[in-house]
Amino acid sequence: MQGASERTMERITIAIAGYGNVGRGVEQSLKLNADTELVAIFTRRPERVREQVPNVSVLQLDEPVPADLKIDVVILCGGSKDDIPVQGPLFAKRFTTVDSFDTHAAIPRYYAEMDRVAKAHGHVAVISTGWDPGIFSMLRVLGDAFLPQGTQYTFWGKGVSQGHSDAARQVKGVVDARAYTIPIEDALKRVRCGETPEFTKREMHKRVVFVVAEPNADAERIRAEITSMPQYFDEYETEVIFVTREAMRKKHARLPHGGFVFATGTTGEGNQHVLEYRTQLESNPEFTANVLVACARAAYRLQQEGRTGAFTLLDIPPCYLSQHSAETLRKEFM
Amino acid sequence: MQGASERTMERITIAIAGYGNVGRGVEQSLKLNADTELVAIFTRRPERVREQVPNVSVLQLDEPVPADLKIDVVILCGGSKDDIPVQGPLFAKRFTTVDSFDTHAAIPRYYAEMDRVAKAHGHVAVISTGWDPGIFSMLRVLGDAFLPQGTQYTFWGKGVSQGHSDAARQVKGVVDARAYTIPIEDALKRVRCGETPEFTKREMHKRVVFVVAEPNADAERIRAEITSMPQYFDEYETEVIFVTREAMRKKHARLPHGGFVFATGTTGEGNQHVLEYRTQLESNPEFTANVLVACARAAYRLQQEGRTGAFTLLDIPPCYLSQHSAETLRKEFM
Repeated sequence: MQGASERTMERITIAIAGYGNVGRGVEQSLKLNADTELVAIFTRRPERVREQVPNVSVLQLDEPVPADLKIDVVILCGGSKDDIPVQGPLFAKRFTTVDSFDTHAAIPRYYAEMDRVAKAHGHVAVISTGWDPGIFSMLRVLGDAFLPQGTQYTFWGKGVSQGHSDAARQVKGVVDARAYTIPIEDALKRVRCGETPEFTKREMHKRVVFVVAEPNADAERIRAEITSMPQYFDEYETEVIFVTREAMRKKHARLPHGGFVFATGTTGEGNQHVLEYRTQLESNPEFTANVLVACARAAYRLQQEGRTGAFTLLDIPPCYLSQHSAETLRKEFM
Repeated sequence: MQGASERTMERITIAIAGYGNVGRGVEQSLKLNADTELVAIFTRRPERVREQVPNVSVLQLDEPVPADLKIDVVILCGGSKDDIPVQGPLFAKRFTTVDSFDTHAAIPRYYAEMDRVAKAHGHVAVISTGWDPGIFSMLRVLGDAFLPQGTQYTFWGKGVSQGHSDAARQVKGVVDARAYTIPIEDALKRVRCGETPEFTKREMHKRVVFVVAEPNADAERIRAEITSMPQYFDEYETEVIFVTREAMRKKHARLPHGGFVFATGTTGEGNQHVLEYRTQLESNPEFTANVLVACARAAYRLQQEGRTGAFTLLDIPPCYLSQHSAETLRKEFM
């Protein structure tokens, strides 16, 4: 017989799909969330992962799940460029899923596809979560709702942009590169004071790129090629700093990031209001993993309620993300 | 015949109960929200309000509503001490309601009563909304969900505390008083850097009280009585500054407020994360009014879905607060 207390102790069973930086972050995060439990990892390289994580079922991405393995939610931890667009719909056929698909312009199309597949198979799919898109999206919506006809700004950084780092690495003679996005302090100050300027890209962010060059490479050519690269660097003030392999390894191994969402607006006789949300993250993938896990809890609860289809953080009541009961939240967090 | 475009234009009809600072703020806010419309004001003084707001039905608090007056949501704008605890359940019997009940310790009991009454009468009651409780409650829950086993801090100010102003006004010889709550800059800095100190009250906030004294009053006695007042001032560093009636009127007529919610925590090998939400409000009642209006929209939508009972901001998907469609939000805000 299963008693009420045992049922209360039942944990949400989670599988990870993709065991990279974010996947390992989710593995760590589940340990901080007592109501969750890692039960499986889907990966392209089961042998290798099996050695690293011995006590968990490790399966090929498309491998059928053993009958005695109950998976409540699969957290998709692959990349947004190649992995999630393919894996999302495949996993949504089989499981309730959570992902961090972050190609902003493609979100409506991805939402439509995940909504269709998840509904057809009776699952929930929480998509495009993390800090941006995700928490920042939520703060933009709240800012607009609470200060209608106001103005909003999103700043990113200081932090490592992996897309820009990859771009700089493509330049001939570059062995390694790490590109930082840095908000312009003066722009932050103006917005924080309630000003509503129309900024150019250059006025909001600058970029600093740390580069390890090949021994005999032409540093000035590399600098010129990086700073003039269209889309990535040419619209910003970009500084290129050459460093040794050793300095790169020691000082730029982590993946910090963060940013700001501002909403400003006026009411009545010109009373000004400024709402500011700021994140400072020492590890972008680990914090993203934490958000994915909170959303896995919400996905599980939505599914338990009989809901199906795609959801973003905009569609989820905040209490669904919390491991505390509604009563505890009203008593201790209101 | 009513066409589709006309139906789209149908606005949420709102009534205000209580025409003070917040009630007038709601009246202003509804003009910024094109999908809402003010149709009635409930007040203890209908004659006076009728002169000020000529184009709207003005009714006694308990007056029956004319058959041709459709009210979707009533926003309760009275005080939390005497008005809302009584008016909340009375209005929830008759209408879907929104209120800013802010006596934190009494919220679970108030929730239970409003939930019971609203459910019994088929209504929705969004309770205890505004910036704190309300937005700050939401940010505390999100911070705890995204950084489990982390630490949280709420700071208030710089802003006018009406409760503390009222308390100072009770001191003999005081004609008028305005008490400001001010967060301690050093405490903010420490938390922003990821430190997790255990603060005393004195270490987080100080208070400054501007006082207009009677002509021959003993300033030192007034200062001593204010700074030693239990609960209100004795646990803080409190500065008392005497000003003229003229200075009080000119420099302290507005009701600014604001504050900070911090969540900090670590992941993996000691990676630290800091989430900070800050509000700077030049008019506390007008911003509170904006939040009430966004919640009225959510209350209306919940009611349209057939939901009943009490809700807080913790129970409401962020998209319900927005005047934009879910499609627009996914396209433009994600």
